[in-house]
Amino acid sequence: MDVNTRLGALRRKMRKHRIDAYFVPNADPHQSEYAPECWERRAWMSGFTGSAGDLLVGKDEAWLWTDGRYFLQAERQLDGSGITLMRQGVTGVPSVEGLLKKTLRKRRRLGVDPRVVTPARSRSLATALADVGAELVLVDDNLVDAVWTEQPDSPASPMMVLDNAYAGESVANKLKRVRGEMRERGADAMVVTMLDAIAWLFNIRAQDVAYNPVAVSYAVVTLDHATLFTNLERMSGRVRRHLGNRVTTAPYADTAAELQRLGRRKATVWLDESSASRWVLDQVAGADVVSAALPIGRMKARKNATELSGMRAAHVRDGVAMVRFLCWLEGAVPAGGQTELTVATQLEAFRSEGEHFQGLSFPTIAGYKENGAIIHYGVTAASAKKLRPQGIFLLDSGAQYLDGTTDITRTLLLGGRATRAQKRNYTLVLKGHIALATARFPAGATGARLDTFARQYLWAAGLDYAHGTGHGVGAFLNVHEGPQSISPRSQSAPLEVGNIQSNEPGFYEPGAYGIRIENLVEVVQDTAISSKGQSFLGFDTLTLCPIDTQLVDVTLLSDVERQWLNRYHRRVRKTLTPLLRKPERTWLAKACARI
Amino acid sequence: MDVNTRLGALRRKMRKHRIDAYFVPNADPHQSEYAPECWERRAWMSGFTGSAGDLLVGKDEAWLWTDGRYFLQAERQLDGSGITLMRQGVTGVPSVEGLLKKTLRKRRRLGVDPRVVTPARSRSLATALADVGAELVLVDDNLVDAVWTEQPDSPASPMMVLDNAYAGESVANKLKRVRGEMRERGADAMVVTMLDAIAWLFNIRAQDVAYNPVAVSYAVVTLDHATLFTNLERMSGRVRRHLGNRVTTAPYADTAAELQRLGRRKATVWLDESSASRWVLDQVAGADVVSAALPIGRMKARKNATELSGMRAAHVRDGVAMVRFLCWLEGAVPAGGQTELTVATQLEAFRSEGEHFQGLSFPTIAGYKENGAIIHYGVTAASAKKLRPQGIFLLDSGAQYLDGTTDITRTLLLGGRATRAQKRNYTLVLKGHIALATARFPAGATGARLDTFARQYLWAAGLDYAHGTGHGVGAFLNVHEGPQSISPRSQSAPLEVGNIQSNEPGFYEPGAYGIRIENLVEVVQDTAISSKGQSFLGFDTLTLCPIDTQLVDVTLLSDVERQWLNRYHRRVRKTLTPLLRKPERTWLAKACARI
Repeated sequence: MDVNTRLGALRRKMRKHRIDAYFVPNADPHQSEYAPECWERRAWMSGFTGSAGDLLVGKDEAWLWTDGRYFLQAERQLDGSGITLMRQGVTGVPSVEGLLKKTLRKRRRLGVDPRVVTPARSRSLATALADVGAELVLVDDNLVDAVWTEQPDSPASPMMVLDNAYAGESVANKLKRVRGEMRERGADAMVVTMLDAIAWLFNIRAQDVAYNPVAVSYAVVTLDHATLFTNLERMSGRVRRHLGNRVTTAPYADTAAELQRLGRRKATVWLDESSASRWVLDQVAGADVVSAALPIGRMKARKNATELSGMRAAHVRDGVAMVRFLCWLEGAVPAGGQTELTVATQLEAFRSEGEHFQGLSFPTIAGYKENGAIIHYGVTAASAKKLRPQGIFLLDSGAQYLDGTTDITRTLLLGGRATRAQKRNYTLVLKGHIALATARFPAGATGARLDTFARQYLWAAGLDYAHGTGHGVGAFLNVHEGPQSISPRSQSAPLEVGNIQSNEPGFYEPGAYGIRIENLVEVVQDTAISSKGQSFLGFDTLTLCPIDTQLVDVTLLSDVERQWLNRYHRRVRKTLTPLLRKPERTWLAKACARI
Repeated sequence: MDVNTRLGALRRKMRKHRIDAYFVPNADPHQSEYAPECWERRAWMSGFTGSAGDLLVGKDEAWLWTDGRYFLQAERQLDGSGITLMRQGVTGVPSVEGLLKKTLRKRRRLGVDPRVVTPARSRSLATALADVGAELVLVDDNLVDAVWTEQPDSPASPMMVLDNAYAGESVANKLKRVRGEMRERGADAMVVTMLDAIAWLFNIRAQDVAYNPVAVSYAVVTLDHATLFTNLERMSGRVRRHLGNRVTTAPYADTAAELQRLGRRKATVWLDESSASRWVLDQVAGADVVSAALPIGRMKARKNATELSGMRAAHVRDGVAMVRFLCWLEGAVPAGGQTELTVATQLEAFRSEGEHFQGLSFPTIAGYKENGAIIHYGVTAASAKKLRPQGIFLLDSGAQYLDGTTDITRTLLLGGRATRAQKRNYTLVLKGHIALATARFPAGATGARLDTFARQYLWAAGLDYAHGTGHGVGAFLNVHEGPQSISPRSQSAPLEVGNIQSNEPGFYEPGAYGIRIENLVEVVQDTAISSKGQSFLGFDTLTLCPIDTQLVDVTLLSDVERQWLNRYHRRVRKTLTPLLRKPERTWLAKACARI
């Protein structure tokens, strides 16, 4: 069944529903970063597999919007489909709303599944349509599902209990804290739709989604009750005993009935309209809705002592795997036959030998030379470059362990000599990394204010990078989590003690090479400089792996920066050496040599 | 007529209007920072003269809200008035809305003059009242005015034309640019309510308000017409000829009729609800209102070449006055008899000898020792401390010249020895000042991202300051102007080439001393580091006056910082020396000596 056949089948369904256009956004009912395959409707319908892109299907035409990262891939994958590529950010290219206003006329109807749009998006679509007299129709049956032959089943991976030895806080206590916040807001019920929030709240994990150890589910918490809606077949007796009588379990499909009950009761319902779907909002119709970020996000981001010590332990294991890999790579590249793909596989193999390994935390980004300049490069068999003992190799990878989540980027000179510009740019990135790692800032500061620490040296040279400087990281949960982050856009959620953040400035020379140096850091209080009047925070670096000094121009480092690097390497060597074999120890000693 | 008598008179008027409470915010119809005396209703009614504070008068009680800067002053000034001081920011102190919900019951009525609240504030009041079944009543006659015997007349200072030699752009061209933006928005008319925006648009100035060289007025611009509503009696033939037939003039009181006409015509009206009053919004009822920042703010903030060269010339003159003053001060303090107030007067005398002097740009802040730690200290005859040849003196002052506006802060050691902590803190402030003065950043960056440059060294020592780092400055206009600023809160309006900004980090040791080092800077493009792909901006410092090196701990400065200070002082000395008398030259040479 090719894309044209699929579009034809969809259009027949559209006619049945008297719909003139159907919107297929790149979203699942839980606004997940990675969706289970059964919900990758846009990819199935259009053939375009990039991680960002919305599809609009009209009666005779279809359009796919995606951003600059994916223009080439989309051109290739949409070829022959008749779908028009809409290049987001290119001057003159209208938005979905803009195109709708141009193509739909009075009384025309746009259909969308209310489960895959936020209330804000549905309002923005409705407003655009109203301008031309057209109408938004929320179609409860997903029309892509209706024509998707061989659509994969809803995921139902085994659910596991995250023991207190890893979670560090009981479900009872988490519920107590959540209910405390509900009482303060005057809420009778809270609807939780984000999968990582539910996994955290109930100390459960699963593998319904790649990389994110979560279960497809909804949760409703009232002041005296909590219900987990999910596929019940995958629940072992152990999980049932863990949830006990504190948490009722119910089939995923029962969510609607429970939400409707809240509406009928005219309950005060707390939900977050920025992540809950229009469908959720409609189900609770009748309720008094309090829309605000759920407290779970902040609670989850402030890791407890158990989670923090688990994160540290996981980073020791991850560092061992990284060092074993880097030592191996030094021999393997000159020996020949390695590609971006084979070395990524090898790195995963080293990681999988570590205790508590649960899989990768995201698809490895392994970009050799010009591929390293593609910020969200996804290596495929077709694109994988052969590695040779020369030039710059960017490697961004991470793993899930029972006790923590890792995310590390190293930029390596595989051999030969780096140019003066490469060394300068690498060193400017490193200086930014160190400035952020050593920054001190008042409690309450948001990530937008800290982002400048990492960019200042690049800016002084007229350089910059087109991504944020750091994202929050879960504890054996999603490698990208909020609410805090370190980026120009992070202007509301302050960093708090116990947050785990990435510190990953970079620089990208298109068509040539990419540089990024990423460690995870923990937000800590600096008790030495904090005073009664004001609490000051800083970072402790968690990641343990040498930073390639071959690419450093030492003359550009201040004494303080050089000392930081040497101290970091001393700590890496001291921590990891006892856990390594002889040749790896030798390699590590060399990699950690003083500069 | 004491405050109790005034409150009694107001309450009689309230009864006549069947109003249970009356709200007197600290605002005039144009949301001005400084209001003409006739609109200082809250001060007259309550006796409290601070620059921030809202009054609520109930049937038997009255409350005044102000912030921490004014707690002491308010306690003193409200003593005996029966008005309860509401200390904003203190835990448990409700907001105006919060108190209204507690004190008003069903069908009670709160009155407010719609001219002195923004639409947002009126909505917030109405929502709070609706929660308890009470009601907001917009009373067109201001009830304070109705009882204010001897209320000063509306100001009608002579209006002057700002010649093209200073303004650098004709009214015709400004109107053309504004109309271009109106067409893009599809607006038929724009309502301008901010006094500095009107002064800029029509190249006029007046002295209706202290420090801000503006005329009380409204303006309405349509695609083929512009009307200035103001007191016409103060208009000379010269002003009338300048405005010509491009700008119709009409009495201030005619604004209502014109706004109503726009409403009846169902025009698309552009106004800024964050500065226009609820009254303006109500007058245009029927119109299709586009609420967004007016383009005039950004246009005004991007100074043209004439304004920039005027600003530079004004800063030379201001630097001469500052150096003459500092030289004088060095002798005057040991000679005795000087106070915070007398030296401020003397500084104004030096400034007034400069060409094009038009008055001060804000009330001078002259804070000796512990008074310097009061960030918004307003010196009075009662509070003025005697200056002695020891300790730290903070002096923040500025002037209006025909060709520009100045604002400078210097922190001086009047004699004796500074403590190690004082020198350290002064040097940390100086390092932040230099970091911002030399910062480079990509075009599009907002002030929140730059603020960090100025704070980083204080943060590293566990210190901070509780104010922004820099405000926009007008060209012979308001010393505080937007939309851009350098502060944690400046997250939307980027800095642009031609903006004038203050650079004023500080540090305050309560009860002991205050430190602030302030220069004005101009935003410039750094052509050396900008590339085809990205434009980078930086600052050129405008202010010319030595920075006291007695307070510098040179060991804390990097080589680059020391060189910046020495280069700055070389430039100050070279520029000002030819314009000074012999003893002043000698003083300047010493003050600018290399460190």
